[in-house]
Amino acid sequence: MRKDIKIYPGKGVTFPKGFLAGGVHAGFKKKKPDLALIYSSKECICVGSFTKNLFIAPPIALSKKKINNKIQAVIINSGNANACTGKQGEKNAREMCKITAKYLNINPKKVLAFSTGIIGKQLDIEKVKKGVGKLIPLLGKNSSEAAKAILTTDKRTKEIGIEFTIEGKKIRIGAMAKGSGMIAPNMGTMLAFLTSDINIERNYLKRIFKESVKQTFNRITVDGDMSTNDSVIFLANGEAGNSVLNENSSEKDKIKFKNSLLIVMQYLAKEIVKDGEGVTKLIKITVHNCKTEKEAEKIALRVGNSLLVKTAVYGGDPNWGRILAAAGSAGVKFDINKFVLKIGKITVYKNNKKCNFDTLKLKSIFNKKEVEINIYINTGSKSVTIYTGDLTEEYIKINSFYHT
Amino acid sequence: MRKDIKIYPGKGVTFPKGFLAGGVHAGFKKKKPDLALIYSSKECICVGSFTKNLFIAPPIALSKKKINNKIQAVIINSGNANACTGKQGEKNAREMCKITAKYLNINPKKVLAFSTGIIGKQLDIEKVKKGVGKLIPLLGKNSSEAAKAILTTDKRTKEIGIEFTIEGKKIRIGAMAKGSGMIAPNMGTMLAFLTSDINIERNYLKRIFKESVKQTFNRITVDGDMSTNDSVIFLANGEAGNSVLNENSSEKDKIKFKNSLLIVMQYLAKEIVKDGEGVTKLIKITVHNCKTEKEAEKIALRVGNSLLVKTAVYGGDPNWGRILAAAGSAGVKFDINKFVLKIGKITVYKNNKKCNFDTLKLKSIFNKKEVEINIYINTGSKSVTIYTGDLTEEYIKINSFYHT
Repeated sequence: MRKDIKIYPGKGVTFPKGFLAGGVHAGFKKKKPDLALIYSSKECICVGSFTKNLFIAPPIALSKKKINNKIQAVIINSGNANACTGKQGEKNAREMCKITAKYLNINPKKVLAFSTGIIGKQLDIEKVKKGVGKLIPLLGKNSSEAAKAILTTDKRTKEIGIEFTIEGKKIRIGAMAKGSGMIAPNMGTMLAFLTSDINIERNYLKRIFKESVKQTFNRITVDGDMSTNDSVIFLANGEAGNSVLNENSSEKDKIKFKNSLLIVMQYLAKEIVKDGEGVTKLIKITVHNCKTEKEAEKIALRVGNSLLVKTAVYGGDPNWGRILAAAGSAGVKFDINKFVLKIGKITVYKNNKKCNFDTLKLKSIFNKKEVEINIYINTGSKSVTIYTGDLTEEYIKINSFYHT
Repeated sequence: MRKDIKIYPGKGVTFPKGFLAGGVHAGFKKKKPDLALIYSSKECICVGSFTKNLFIAPPIALSKKKINNKIQAVIINSGNANACTGKQGEKNAREMCKITAKYLNINPKKVLAFSTGIIGKQLDIEKVKKGVGKLIPLLGKNSSEAAKAILTTDKRTKEIGIEFTIEGKKIRIGAMAKGSGMIAPNMGTMLAFLTSDINIERNYLKRIFKESVKQTFNRITVDGDMSTNDSVIFLANGEAGNSVLNENSSEKDKIKFKNSLLIVMQYLAKEIVKDGEGVTKLIKITVHNCKTEKEAEKIALRVGNSLLVKTAVYGGDPNWGRILAAAGSAGVKFDINKFVLKIGKITVYKNNKKCNFDTLKLKSIFNKKEVEINIYINTGSKSVTIYTGDLTEEYIKINSFYHT
C-alpha cells in the first residue's frame, strides 16, 4: 500500500495547496525565531488532541474550545508556555488570536494560538504585536522558519510532507513538530501541526486522527513527564478538490489516507524521541501477545520509562535483568514461565531462565543507534510498540539549568 | 512521647540482647565485604515485607515462604542478586541456608537468605561455603562489618539503635539497611534488617510492622524502579524479658513500641534516599488535604518521580512550574483554584496564579541540602509525606556502567 504514498522529508506545513507559513524572532528567546504562523487562504476544518494535564495552559484550553470552528490561522510562540498564568494568561491567549486576526483581516474565531517554553511567566503581549507585524509580510511557501520558531531545546526541526492520490487528485499532508523534554504518553511539551488540502468529512477525520495519535504520539516517552501545553492539530482546507472522504468512501482511499496519516505521525513521533533532550539512542520496545492492548502498553511504558533500562542502553551495557525487573513491576500479572525477552535477534530469557548467548554480540546490539527490545508475554494476541530514548548526563544538564 | 525513646545512631543489629553479627569478603565483589550474617542465640519470631515484582529473586521467594518459621540466622550476600536465575537460583538459595545452618549447627528451616547485586548471574556457591566458614569465628557484638557487607553502590552504611523501657525492662531495636538505586515505593533494591530483644506477639507485630513499612520504606523513591530483591524483616527473640506485648497491652507501651519502630524505619528510609545513587539533596514532598490517602500518595509520587522536578532541585533552579505540571498529570482530579503550592516557607502558587515572592529567596531554598515541597489540594483531610532525592549526572554515570 505504501508504494502509492510518496514521502518528502524536506517539506512541511506549506506543502499542501493553499497553506502559507512564516517564522520570526519576536523576543521570547534571546536570538532564535520564536513566533510562527500557519495560514490557509481557505477556511479549514480542524481536529486536535490536547494535554490531559489539569494545569492545561490558557492558549491550549482556548484552542481546545475553538477546535470546532472553521480555522484559517494558527499562531504559535516558543520561549514562554503561557502556562500557570491564571486570568491574565487567558486574556493574553485571546489577545494573541485577536492580534493575528486583525493583521490577517479575519475573525478571531478563526485563529488558534499555541505556546511552549517556560511555565509560570506572563507573556509579553507587546512582543506578540510587533512579532506578528513582522511575520505577515514574510508569509510564504517556505516552511522552515516556522518549523524553527516552534522549537525549545530541540536541536533540529521536524518536518515532513506526504503525497498520494484519490480519484486522480493529488492529496498532500504537511507537518511540523517540536518535542524534546517532558515527552510522555498523552503527550509532553510536544506540539505538532498537520495541514492538508484533502477534502474530508470532519467526523470521519476525527475518528482516524484519534486512532493515529493513540498509536504514535501517545506511544513515545522521553522522561515520563506530561506537559501543560501538548497539542496535535490537523487542518484540512479541501483545496485538493477530491470528493469528500468519509466512512462511505472506498476502502482503498480510506486506507491510503489512514496510512499516510500514520506515516506522518509516526515519523514526527520518532523524530521527537531521537531529538529528545540528551538522547543518543532510539529504543523500540514491543510487548507481544498480551491479553489486552492496555496490558501490553502498561508493560511497554514501564520498561520504556525505567531509568535503569534507559541508562543501561546509554552505557551500551547489556544489563538485561533490568528489563525483566521493570516488566515484572508494571502492575500486570503474567506467567514468568511463558515470558520471553529478545534483544535485537538474540533470545536472552526464556522458560524462566537466561538463555545461552554471546555476550559480546548482545553488547554490540546495545551499542547500536537503535536498540530493539521484544517482550513476549504469551497470554493473548495483543501487541503494542513504543519508542523511547536513552537517559544521559546531557539530559540532566539541560534540565538542571533551563530556567535561569 | 519521644523523650522515652533513646536513639543510638552508631549501633546496629547487634544492639539488642542475644544478637551477633559479622561480615567478610567472600568474592562476589572485588575487594569489599560482601557476605553478612546475623545470628540470634535464641529463636526469633520474624515478620517481613517483600518485593511485589513478578521476577522475585529465588532467595527472597524462599525467605518469604519461611517467614512463619522460628528464625535464628540470616545470611546475606551482596554483589550478586541471584535474581532471574531460575531453578538453579532456587537451588543455590536453599544451599545458602543449608551451608549456614550446618556451620551454626541449627536446622536450615531457621535460616533466611537474602541477596543483592547484579541480576541474571548464577551465584557461585563455593564462595558462599568458604565465606560462611570465614564468617562464623568472626561473629560478635560489632555490627559494622555486616552493615558494610550488604551494600552495593551505597556510599555509607546505614545503622541505628533504639532503646526504650517497658515494665522497667530495657527494650532495644537495632537495624541496618542498604539502598541506592532502584528505590521506589513497594521498595527498590533495598534490604533492611531489624532485630529486637522485645517479647512480642507475632500477629500484633505483623500489623504494626506492616503499617510502619507503608508509612516509611514505601514512601521513598529514588528512581521509581522496583527491584526483584527488596525486603524488610524484623526479628524478635524476646530476650528483654518483658511480658509479651500484644493488642491488649497498655496504650502507653504499645505507642512506645510503635513510635520506636517508626523512628528506626523512618531513619533508614531517609538515609537510603540521602545515599541514593548520585543524590545530593533530599526532597520532602507533602501533599495535604486530599479526599483519600491514596490520592495524596499518587500526587506526591508523581511529583517525586518527575525527572524534571528532580533535575530542577539538583540545579538549584526554582522552576516551580514543573511541580504544577507533575501534580496536574498525576491522574487525580482536583480543583486547580483550590490548589496551593508552598516551597519551604514561600507560597508560590495560589488562587490559580503565581504569588508575589522574592525569586532570590526561592532560589536559596532550592539550594539547600533539604528542599521541602508542600502541596495543598484542599478537598479533604488526608495527607501523605514522601522523600526523594535529586537526579544528577552521577546517577547516570553509576547506572550506565554498573554491569561491566
